[in-house]
Formats: sequence, structure tokens, C-alpha cells
Amino acid sequence: MPKKIEIFDSTLRDGAQAEGISFSVEDKIKIVKALDSLNITYIEAGNPGSNPKDLEFFRRMKSQNLKNSKLTAFGSTRRPGITAEEDINIQSLLEADTPVVAVFGKSWDFHVTEIIKTTLDENLNMLRDTIQFLKSKGKEVMFDAEHFFDGYKANSEYAMETLRAAKEGGADWLVLCETNGGAFPDEIYRITKEVVDTFNIKVGIHCHNDCGMAVANSIMAVEAGATQIQGTYLGFGERCGNANLSTLIGNLQVKKGLECIPKNQIVNLTPVARYIAEITNISINEREPYIGNTAFAHKGGMHIDGVSKATHSFEHINPETVGNKRRFLMSEVSGKSTILNKIQRINPSITKDSPETQAIIDRLKELEHMGYQFEGAESTFELIIRKQLGKYRPFFELIHYKIMGEQPAADPETSSSVLVKINVDGQEELTVAEGNGPVNALDKALRKALEVFYPSIRDVHLTDYKVRVLDTKTATAAKVRVLIESSDGHNVWSTVGVSSDIIEASWIALVDSMEYKLIKDIEEKVKAYI
Amino acid sequence: MPKKIEIFDSTLRDGAQAEGISFSVEDKIKIVKALDSLNITYIEAGNPGSNPKDLEFFRRMKSQNLKNSKLTAFGSTRRPGITAEEDINIQSLLEADTPVVAVFGKSWDFHVTEIIKTTLDENLNMLRDTIQFLKSKGKEVMFDAEHFFDGYKANSEYAMETLRAAKEGGADWLVLCETNGGAFPDEIYRITKEVVDTFNIKVGIHCHNDCGMAVANSIMAVEAGATQIQGTYLGFGERCGNANLSTLIGNLQVKKGLECIPKNQIVNLTPVARYIAEITNISINEREPYIGNTAFAHKGGMHIDGVSKATHSFEHINPETVGNKRRFLMSEVSGKSTILNKIQRINPSITKDSPETQAIIDRLKELEHMGYQFEGAESTFELIIRKQLGKYRPFFELIHYKIMGEQPAADPETSSSVLVKINVDGQEELTVAEGNGPVNALDKALRKALEVFYPSIRDVHLTDYKVRVLDTKTATAAKVRVLIESSDGHNVWSTVGVSSDIIEASWIALVDSMEYKLIKDIEEKVKAYI
Repeated sequence: MPKKIEIFDSTLRDGAQAEGISFSVEDKIKIVKALDSLNITYIEAGNPGSNPKDLEFFRRMKSQNLKNSKLTAFGSTRRPGITAEEDINIQSLLEADTPVVAVFGKSWDFHVTEIIKTTLDENLNMLRDTIQFLKSKGKEVMFDAEHFFDGYKANSEYAMETLRAAKEGGADWLVLCETNGGAFPDEIYRITKEVVDTFNIKVGIHCHNDCGMAVANSIMAVEAGATQIQGTYLGFGERCGNANLSTLIGNLQVKKGLECIPKNQIVNLTPVARYIAEITNISINEREPYIGNTAFAHKGGMHIDGVSKATHSFEHINPETVGNKRRFLMSEVSGKSTILNKIQRINPSITKDSPETQAIIDRLKELEHMGYQFEGAESTFELIIRKQLGKYRPFFELIHYKIMGEQPAADPETSSSVLVKINVDGQEELTVAEGNGPVNALDKALRKALEVFYPSIRDVHLTDYKVRVLDTKTATAAKVRVLIESSDGHNVWSTVGVSSDIIEASWIALVDSMEYKLIKDIEEKVKAYI
Repeated sequence: MPKKIEIFDSTLRDGAQAEGISFSVEDKIKIVKALDSLNITYIEAGNPGSNPKDLEFFRRMKSQNLKNSKLTAFGSTRRPGITAEEDINIQSLLEADTPVVAVFGKSWDFHVTEIIKTTLDENLNMLRDTIQFLKSKGKEVMFDAEHFFDGYKANSEYAMETLRAAKEGGADWLVLCETNGGAFPDEIYRITKEVVDTFNIKVGIHCHNDCGMAVANSIMAVEAGATQIQGTYLGFGERCGNANLSTLIGNLQVKKGLECIPKNQIVNLTPVARYIAEITNISINEREPYIGNTAFAHKGGMHIDGVSKATHSFEHINPETVGNKRRFLMSEVSGKSTILNKIQRINPSITKDSPETQAIIDRLKELEHMGYQFEGAESTFELIIRKQLGKYRPFFELIHYKIMGEQPAADPETSSSVLVKINVDGQEELTVAEGNGPVNALDKALRKALEVFYPSIRDVHLTDYKVRVLDTKTATAAKVRVLIESSDGHNVWSTVGVSSDIIEASWIALVDSMEYKLIKDIEEKVKAYI
């Protein structure tokens, strides 16, 4: 096996072809930054030729400097009968202005003659020309040999011919795509080895999960000499999805000692997974290897007994290595040191044995049990610590709010109205606001009331609002978690609220956001005097 | 490879060790019957020694005649220093009165000395004695060699010694357990082959999924000569779960031609999966190979085009073989033919050139532009087609709804109240309901009003509720998309609503759900007359 494996993430391209996945340009930029922070070598982020939204994304990316990763645009080889230069999809690929392009072409003779309906010869010309043209523009070029394994099994000579043409065109990488996901590990090993032995060029592997073996198949390809793995970070993609990169990085780097990302980044495997899921607005399968919520959860009595005596008795790795944690399902134990670290930022004199530490851990557990999650809501987390340490005073007291709504509405922008009554140091303020929904009206009414006492609230605006339904089985009576991101033009902070009433969950997150802003204002003032 | 593979399902034992899984005795009996109908060879259904509920289950099973499967009880080898006969766990194993027992014992020297704290010799006696005793009672006995692969890697001589003792005791099967889920396919192949070559006895494999390779590892063991595969039908189990048997049956029987279940049962692979999920009260991961909801769903335009020309262009098997179905996802990228296909289900005389087809496509685009997405909401899509084709009449008219909410609330369960007024054929109905949030109250009030006119609405319940905030940048004024899944006990359908007001978005999806149910009721009635 080689020592370094290049990871190629296609969450934003092949991943976007999964059911229910739809990224905004903003989502894409956030995910690119997360993958860049993890030093993923290649980030395939869109198909500019087929999707105008992707072209806008690539335009926006020009002003963003990636520190570690290479942005990659994806597209097809030129169409039959024209030059690469004339093909508008290839023009779009160039417009995307990325250092790397991945072009896919047909390696299965049946697809050439029956699906894209051209000749076997013209297909070779198409992929050779396209790669040559893109190389002349200074790109690093990957040739994605679509259906390579099915093609090889049907007509090995022609499949190999397509790779030869790609190499002649100047491709930097030959990527063998197991497009239909139907191949078995032994086939992957044998055919990949044949390619590695035949061509003196770097080889990548791209597997799909239709037989539940995309991860194992990718590893067999690495054993046969492939040095690049394509997949998606959380495994979602067309049909049954792509090879799961979070699993593969765990397997190859933690278990086999091959470098996929820098050593000091492995601990971020789980946090990055959760962040990507949050932005994508999906739940991670809780049994997902390495990063899943139950990946290191022990339920059977003998298992808990074993792990208490020696963790490796029922754990193949230490969960902290990948930023995950061990859980005993009967008696929950949390990672004390992580929490202590956060506590000491507020009060450095607290130690792990201080009673405050235990009180905060107990409160966190209680909130987590209620459905709170603090990974995307550090500001709420800070407020909880402050409340427990007595480093908090309420900036206002809610007397009550009342919401009213009606449909049909004369004007959708004012379909809801909300009345808010608060008390600040004995002075009451009653406000009312209208909005295009109850949460919007509530937000406006609360600001209006607070601005009377705290003019800096005027600078705050919400930059993100997300809703996650917890325990979907209870349907409209289910709990919801609302995540809010706020900004005052200088700082950005995130807060969270949970309730079975979406209005109340939003209220909780809104209040935390406003209070956090006011605390930071005071801290800045204090700093100015030191 | 052999021709017949014995399938051993542990959904009710190892599966019950998954987080969030808890079976009643009734649940267990239902699942046993489903697995029996599929001709699963062995059904491991409980641990009578450690769990008194399981003993009750086995008692109840005595009156049930299984047609095809052999019920199996699971337990440990005897404790150190006593005879097998004296061990109360082993007495419970006998009380379970099953034709087959699976006893697990330690194969990893470290576990013997450090976890159960006995001597290496006594461990050999324990498993030899136990098996001998159970054989003397006429049982078919499997020896589950716990941690066999880790044990082999640490001390191969001792690990093999434990197998030898089990064989001496008279075990019918040696089952190699990859308990911690940390092994790689090449190791599994090599070590299993060593066992198969050394002992003249039937060998089974039991894999866990902590590296995402339980399926591939099981297949490698079969290639090395194992003829029994243990796992759980849907893959759930301790930590990351067990080898997924629905995937394995698909891989081995449909792809490799090995017999796991009778040929005419393969078409039940998906229906049985859904039934087990229903009884277990979990959602199947939609990307699950063979049986998942998106396993044969196509979204990318080129994929849809390819499959329309020849299904095997992007499908490794025909979905109907395993009782699943092909789906073309509605999205910006899907082509005309997908939509036409759905239109023709309602009116077969419409062609792609009919003006109705273009009108529907235009309407679809308009709605998608507004934020609608029909991938998860086929029923709303059907209603849109019906409306365009004139095959629709409204079942009721909304006069208005009014929502009221207040915090703090005396009782969170009644924090919101909603008034709904509808008109059905000139008759007005005014209802009011309270709920733990406005959406919940709205849902209750609408049903209450509709039930007056349409009693079958009483059978409908919502099984899933999802909220996606679109365009999060505009924060609380953003549009939201609400997806609702409903069931009447027989059918499941999904609807969608979009609005900047979350209450209105929920209303739209709720109305579609009720109307869809009422249309299907009429269709059933019509069918009864034909």
C-alpha cells in the first residue's frame, strides 16, 4: 500500500444527486470551507455546464481563498461531432475557473452505442480531445471512466482503450468509476490491479454503495495500487449513495496508518461530519462508523462490563481519536475535559473537581435529553455556563407574548401579528409587530421592545434560521430544535432553542441571541477600561 | 463457493442490543413469523438466561409452529468452576426448548484472563463441557467464537485451541465472530480460510459494522468457505450494527446465484424489510441497498435518460426482483418522460405532445421556483396533475382559520388554540382545538371539522413531519417547506407545502394529505364496482 491517499470529496456534486438534498450557494460555500479546514485534497463542488446555479457558486468562490484544498469542477467530455472548444459545457467548465477539472466519459461500449449513440472511435476522440484541450488551459485533469468495471467485464479491450486515450490526452489521473455499484471486492481488486500494472499513471477509485460494499471496494482498490479515493463525506449520493469518506478516512488513517488528512485533523472527523449534516439539514445515520451517535455506544451488560475493564475489549479504536465519544446507554458519562475547557474560559479558577463543574455537566445532560445540541450553538452553551456560575443577569423579563394569525390574509406580509410585553428594571414595554408568519412577527416585536432600552440591538440581524424536527414519529406534536445565527456586522454567533411549540423554540433561541449580544457589549466596554 | 448459504438472523437478540430498540413479546412473535415466511434458516430470538422477558417469549413460542425456520436460543458457556448442569443460565437455555442453541465463549486470550478472569485452560473446559452437555440434550449446537479474529491476531494458537475444544465438545457449527467490527476483508478471508482448511466442520461468520465493511467481510468469509452468515435483517445491533442480511441475501442470491432463501421468496425481500421496520417502529435508512426507498431512485438528468433507454445502464439489478421499485425523482433536472409517465397513470390518453403535458410542466416549474420539491411528496404531485387535468374536485373550502398562542402558558399542551371554519357543499362547520404548538392545534382542528363529513379521516394519522428553511439568509422571514407523511394503516403518502409562514405551509401539506386520502377512498369504491 502507498503511504499517502488523496481524498476527493463530491458531497456538493454527486452528493447533490441524492434524494432530498438541495444546496444553496451559501450552503456550498460553508461546506467547502469545512472540507478545506480538514485538508481534503480535492473538493468537487458542482457541474457548471448543467446547472447555472453552480456557475454562480464558482463565481462567488473566486473571492474565497482556500488554504489547503483544490476546488474541482465536474463535467462531461465534449459532445460528438464538434470540437472541445465549441462545446458550451466545456466553456462553462473553464468559466468555473478552478485549478482542477474532472471530466467523465464512457468506458462501457454499450453506453457509447446505445445511450449516447455515437461510434466507439468517436468516443475515444471525444475524451482524448477534451482532456487535451483542458490540459492546454493549464488544468489538472482527472478522467472519470464511467462504468469502468461493467465496461471491463463486457469488453475489457475497449474499456482499456478509453483509458489509453485519456492518458494520451494528457490526463493526470485515471479514475475508475464503479457507477452502478454492483461490483464485488475481488473484481475491484483484480481489475484495478490490471489498470495499475498496465498504465504508468496515478489511479483513483469512485465507488457506489448499491451492494453495501462501497467502502470495502475502495479499500480493495487502494490495496491494488489506487492512490485517490472519491466519495462523499457522509455517503449520500445517487441511489444508495457513494463511498463514505468519513468511514474511509477512519479505516485508512486510524486503522492502516495511511495519511489521508494531516494527523492533527483526525480529531475533527466527527465535528466536521456533524457540521456538514447541519448545513445540509439531514440527520446522520446514528450507526454510521466512527462519526455516528451510537458508533461507540454500549448497551449489552457484558459489553459495558468489558469496556469498563478495558476499552479495547469492545471498541476497535478509541472514540476520542476521531472526535466522537463513548456512551454507556444505561449510565451516561460525558467528556469532562472538553466542558471544563469551556468553563475555564469564563472562570479560570474552576477545576474539574469544583462542584460547579458537576452542576454544569448535570444541566447539559438534562438539556441534551430534552433535544438540545450545542455543536452548532456555542453561544447558548456559553450562556448556560454563565447562568450556572452566577456570571449572568437577565437583561429583561418576559411578561408575556401573544400570537395571532389568520388565513386567508389580506396581505401575506402581515398575516401574523405578535404582541410582546417585557419588563426592564421595573419599566414595562409593550410592543406589537406584524410579519409574514408568527416567528417573523415575534422577532420584530422583541427587537422593537429591546431597542428602547438597548440601542445596540438595532445592529443585530439574523443571518440564518434552521428548523429540525426531532422524533418525527410523533408528527405535528413532535419537538423541534431551532438554530439561529446572528450578526452585528462584526461578530457572528449561534443560539438554539427546543420546544414542541415552534414559536417557543424560536423565542428561546432569539432571547439567547439578544442576551449574548448584550453580554459581549459589556465585555467590550470593560476591556476598554483595562 | 458453495451452492447453499444458511442465513442466521439475530434481529431479536443482537438487534435488540441496538440503541432505541425494544421489542415486546408480541413484536417478537410477529417478526419470527415474518422471517419464517421468508424461510430464514435460523432465527436467534433471545437470551433466556439474561432476560426473563425472553424466557416468557420462548414459552409462548411453544404453541407456534414454525414452517421453515429453526428457532435458536442464545447464551454463554458455563461459568468457571461449576458444571454445565449447575449453571442457571444453561438451565434457562434448556427451558427455552428450542431445537438450536448458540453458545458464545471466549477465543481471545486477553478476554479470558482480563475480562472474565479465569485461566486459559478452564476457558477451554468451559466451552467443551457446555457444548457436550447441550449435545447430550439433543440440541443442534453452534459455538460462537467471540472476538475470534482479534484473538487470532493476538494469539493464533490459543484462538485455534478454543475451536478445537468446541469441536471436541461436539459442536455442529464453528461461528467466527468479528465482535468489535474492526477487521478488514483480507484478514477475514485469510483467517477464515485457515479455519476451514484446519477443521473438517461447518463454519459460520458473524460480522459487525464498525468499519462499514460487515457485508463485504461476510462475503469474503463465504469465499473462504463459510456456509452460514449471521446478521440482522435491517443491520441494527450493538454500536454500528451487524452485517445487514437484506443486503447479503441480495448480494449472494441475486448477484451470485447462491441459494439463501427459496427462489420464489426473493421478491419479498423489500416487503419483509418494511414489515420488520414497522413492527420495530424505526425508519429504514432510505439509501439501504436493495430495500431502501431511494435504492432505485434516479435524480441526475443523464441517469434518468439512460435508465429510460435501458434500465441496466444505471441499475445493477431490476428493482422488481427484490420487491422494490424504480423511481424517477421530480426535480429541476428530470426530463419530460418522467413526468409523462406519472400523467399517464391518471389519464393514459395524454401524450408528450398534448397541451396538458406542457401546462403541467409549466406549473411544476413555477412551483419549484417557489421552493416546492416533489421528490418526497409524490401525492402532492399527483394532486397537481389531477388539478391540471380536471380530474379533481375540492372536498371542502376553507373559510378561514385563526391561530392564537401565548407564553407563558398555564399548560404547554394547550399553549396554542386554533379555530377552523370550512364549507362542504354549502354546509359550514366551525371547530376549535388546542395543541402544544400552533401546527399541532391546526392539525387537530382540521381533522375534527372534516370527520363530520368524511368519517374515514379518523383512520389517518401523521407519521412524519419535516421542516426545511429555504434561503436561510432572510432568517425568520424565510420561506419554509413542510413535508408531511401520512398513513391510514394500509397506505403511506407524502405531501408538501411552502410558505413564508410555517403555519400556512403546514396547512397546505395537511390539506393535500386529507384530499389525497379522500380521492383514494373513492378510487377504491369505484374499483369495487368494476
